[in-house]
Amino acid sequence: MVVELISVGTELLLGNIVNTNASYLAEKCALLGLSLYYQSVVGDNEERMAETMRTALGRSDVVIVSGGLGPTKDDLTKEVAASVLGMPLKEDKHTRKRIEEYFKNSQFKIITDNNWKQAQVPAGSIVIDNKNGTAPGLILEKDGKSMILLPGPPNELRPMFEETVFPYLNKLQPETICSAMVKICGLGESYVETQIADMIEKQKNPTIAPYAKTGEVHLRITAKAADEKEARKLIKPVVKELRNRFGNHIYSTDEKETLAENVLNLLKERQLTLTTAESCTGGMLAARLTDVPGASEVFKQGLVTYSNKAKRKLLDVKKMTLKDFGAVSEKTAKEMAKNGAFITGADVCISVTGIAGPGGGTEEKPVGLVYIACCLNNKLTVKEFHFKGNRAKVREYTVARALTLLRSCILEAEGKEEKA
Amino acid sequence: MVVELISVGTELLLGNIVNTNASYLAEKCALLGLSLYYQSVVGDNEERMAETMRTALGRSDVVIVSGGLGPTKDDLTKEVAASVLGMPLKEDKHTRKRIEEYFKNSQFKIITDNNWKQAQVPAGSIVIDNKNGTAPGLILEKDGKSMILLPGPPNELRPMFEETVFPYLNKLQPETICSAMVKICGLGESYVETQIADMIEKQKNPTIAPYAKTGEVHLRITAKAADEKEARKLIKPVVKELRNRFGNHIYSTDEKETLAENVLNLLKERQLTLTTAESCTGGMLAARLTDVPGASEVFKQGLVTYSNKAKRKLLDVKKMTLKDFGAVSEKTAKEMAKNGAFITGADVCISVTGIAGPGGGTEEKPVGLVYIACCLNNKLTVKEFHFKGNRAKVREYTVARALTLLRSCILEAEGKEEKA
Repeated sequence: MVVELISVGTELLLGNIVNTNASYLAEKCALLGLSLYYQSVVGDNEERMAETMRTALGRSDVVIVSGGLGPTKDDLTKEVAASVLGMPLKEDKHTRKRIEEYFKNSQFKIITDNNWKQAQVPAGSIVIDNKNGTAPGLILEKDGKSMILLPGPPNELRPMFEETVFPYLNKLQPETICSAMVKICGLGESYVETQIADMIEKQKNPTIAPYAKTGEVHLRITAKAADEKEARKLIKPVVKELRNRFGNHIYSTDEKETLAENVLNLLKERQLTLTTAESCTGGMLAARLTDVPGASEVFKQGLVTYSNKAKRKLLDVKKMTLKDFGAVSEKTAKEMAKNGAFITGADVCISVTGIAGPGGGTEEKPVGLVYIACCLNNKLTVKEFHFKGNRAKVREYTVARALTLLRSCILEAEGKEEKA
Repeated sequence: MVVELISVGTELLLGNIVNTNASYLAEKCALLGLSLYYQSVVGDNEERMAETMRTALGRSDVVIVSGGLGPTKDDLTKEVAASVLGMPLKEDKHTRKRIEEYFKNSQFKIITDNNWKQAQVPAGSIVIDNKNGTAPGLILEKDGKSMILLPGPPNELRPMFEETVFPYLNKLQPETICSAMVKICGLGESYVETQIADMIEKQKNPTIAPYAKTGEVHLRITAKAADEKEARKLIKPVVKELRNRFGNHIYSTDEKETLAENVLNLLKERQLTLTTAESCTGGMLAARLTDVPGASEVFKQGLVTYSNKAKRKLLDVKKMTLKDFGAVSEKTAKEMAKNGAFITGADVCISVTGIAGPGGGTEEKPVGLVYIACCLNNKLTVKEFHFKGNRAKVREYTVARALTLLRSCILEAEGKEEKA
C-alpha cells in the first residue's frame, strides 16, 4: 500500500517553522510497513492545493494531509478535499456539540461564526475527535482510496494519529504490523550494525532498522502477522537475541523512556540521590535530568563550576591538581566527582570536564577531549573521551556519555557487569 | 520569480531526519523576495525524481534540489537532473583536483573509483566549490530556467548557499533585495504586532515580517532597490522607527546574535561576572549561557538548587522563608539571588524558582507560576510570571525571561530605562 503526505501551510513555505509533522508521519508510516514515495508542501491556495491532492490521489492509495483546518477563511484544506473527491459538506452535530463544550471549558468564551465552519464535514466521512483543539480530523474514502485530514499543531495531530489513524491504516492492510524499540547506549552506530549484520542480512519478518541518536542507537523491530498476538510472538525472540548480544547496553525497550529517565528510575529504585558537577557542559547535564518530571526525588542539586576558581571554591579541587594536571584531566574529574558527592551529601556524583571548543584546544589537549567521572558510594570511575564535531556536538555527546557512565556504574555496583 | 524546492533522500521518506534544509532554504528564498509555492520530498529513485523535477521545471523559474549528490550508486540527483535538462556529463578537472586535495587532508587516504563520479558535471554548468565535503554544488541553466543542485548535509549546503547561490539568485532578479533583523525581547508577539499595525498596514517597500520565538519576537525588514546601498537606505528609517517604538526591548540587529550572547557581551563590556541560581529550570539557564563560546569570561559558576535542602545548604535560603512563603515565592527568589551573588563573589546573580509541572501545582500556586530575581551589585529586582504550556514550554519561557530581566537590570543600573 502506498501512502503520500501533503503538508499545508504558508509558515512552511516561508521557512518560519520546520516540518516536524512530515518526519513524525513518515516514521509512523514506515513503522506500519507502508511505502511512502512522495511528500509535498503547499500553501493555503485553492488551485495549487487541489492540483497537489489530485496528483497524490493519482499515484497513492492513502493521502495524509496536515494543516489548514483552522476556523479562518484562509484555511481551505477541508473545502478543497471535499471538492476534489466530490463529497458535499454538511454540518456534523456531534462536532458542533464538541466545539460548544470546548469553548465552555476554555478561557475564550465567545464562539464566532468562523468556529461553526469547523463543524462542517464532507458527507460520509469518518470524524476523528480532537481532544486538544476545535478542528476535527477527517477520513474521506472514495473509490478504494483514502484521504486523511489532520490539524497542523503537533499536540493535536499526534494523539489523533496514534489513537485513530494508526489503527485505521493497520486495518486497511491484509496483515497487522507491530513493532518494538530496543534502545542501546554506550556503543557506536557502526559497531552495533556490525554486531547485527548477520541478523539484518537474513531478515524477512521481523525486520530490524537502526536509528542513530547522539550517543545512542535505537533498533526498531517490526513484524507482520495475522494479528497482534502473532506479530508480538515473532518479535520476542529477536529482542531476546539482541539482549544476548548487547546485554546491559540495552537500557530500555519502552517507546517513550529516555536515557535520563532510565537512569533516574534506576537511582530511585535503589534510593540513591544524585548530584552533578559540570564544567564544559555548563548545566546541560542537570537540565537533561530535570527535563524528566519527578526528577526531584533523586536529583537534589547540581554544581556548574565553569572556572578554575569555582572548581576550587565550590568543589574543593586542589590548587596543585589544577596546576599540575590542568582543569581538563582525569585527576580533576575525579576530585570533582568525589568532592561533589561529599560536599552535597549525595550518594552519587557525576562530573564532567572537557574542551568543547571552538577555542581552548592545544596539540596535547585538543577540542573534544572530555573526562567524565562518577563517584558512587565512594567508588570512583573515570573515563577519557575524544568527541568529534562542533561545540554543540561535543556538549551533546558528553551529556549522553555521562548518563551512560552513570548507568553502568549503578549496574556494576551490583555486580551486573556489562556484556559488550 | 517563482522558486521551488525538492529534497532528495530516503531518510526523509522514512522519517529518520527532519527536513531542516527545506526550512532553511525557504526562509532564504522569502528573504530574497522569491515566491515559493511548492516543496517536495522524493527518494533516490530515477523515475520518480525525474517526474518531480519535470513538474517543478514546468511551473517554476528556479528549482533548488538538495541531497543525493554522494559518491555511491544510490545517489542519482546529478545524473537525473543532467538527463532531464539534456546536458551530458563530463569530468571537471578543477573538481577532480579538489577531491584529490580533500582526501590528502582527510583521515581517509584511499580514494575509491566511486569518488571520481563526483568530478563529473553536466556540460556548461556552474560549479560551486564545497569546502566541507567532496560533492560540488551545481547550477544548471536552460531555456531561462535554473536548476540548482546542493549536497544534503547542512554544514555543506548552508555555506555554499550563502556564498554562491544567494548572490546568484539576487542577481537573477531585476532588483536587489536586502534585509535587516530587529530582535525584540520582553514583549509578547501580539503586543508587538499591535504596536506596528500601522506600519504593516501601509508597508510596500520595505516590508516588515514578524517571527515569534519563545519569549522573543524577531522582525525582518526587507527592501528591494536598484542596488544594495539604495536598499539599505530604505531599511534605515524603518529600523530607527522601530527603535523609537520599542527602545531597549530591541536587543540586537545582528542576524546571528542570540539573547544569551547579547547579555554576556553587555556584562563583559562592564567587566561584571555572573552566576546563576536555578530551581525549576534545573541547569537550562546555565546551559544556555555556556552555549556561547567564550562565556567563561563572564560566567564562572552556576548553582542548581532543586530541593529545599539544597536551597538552604548551597544558597543559605532561610528555613523560615521556605516554611512561611514556600520555595516558589518572591522572597525565596530574592534570597537565592542575593545569597548566590554573595556566596560565589559574582557581581550579578540571576535566580529562578517556579512550578514547571505537570505535578506540583495548587490552586494558589498553579503550574506555570515562576519568580525570577536579579541581584546586581547588591540591588535586587524580582518579577512574577504566569507561563502557559507544558513542562518544556514553562522552562523555555523561564530561561528567555530570566535573560530578559538580567538584561534590563544591567541597562537600568546605568539609568537606561526601558521605553515600553
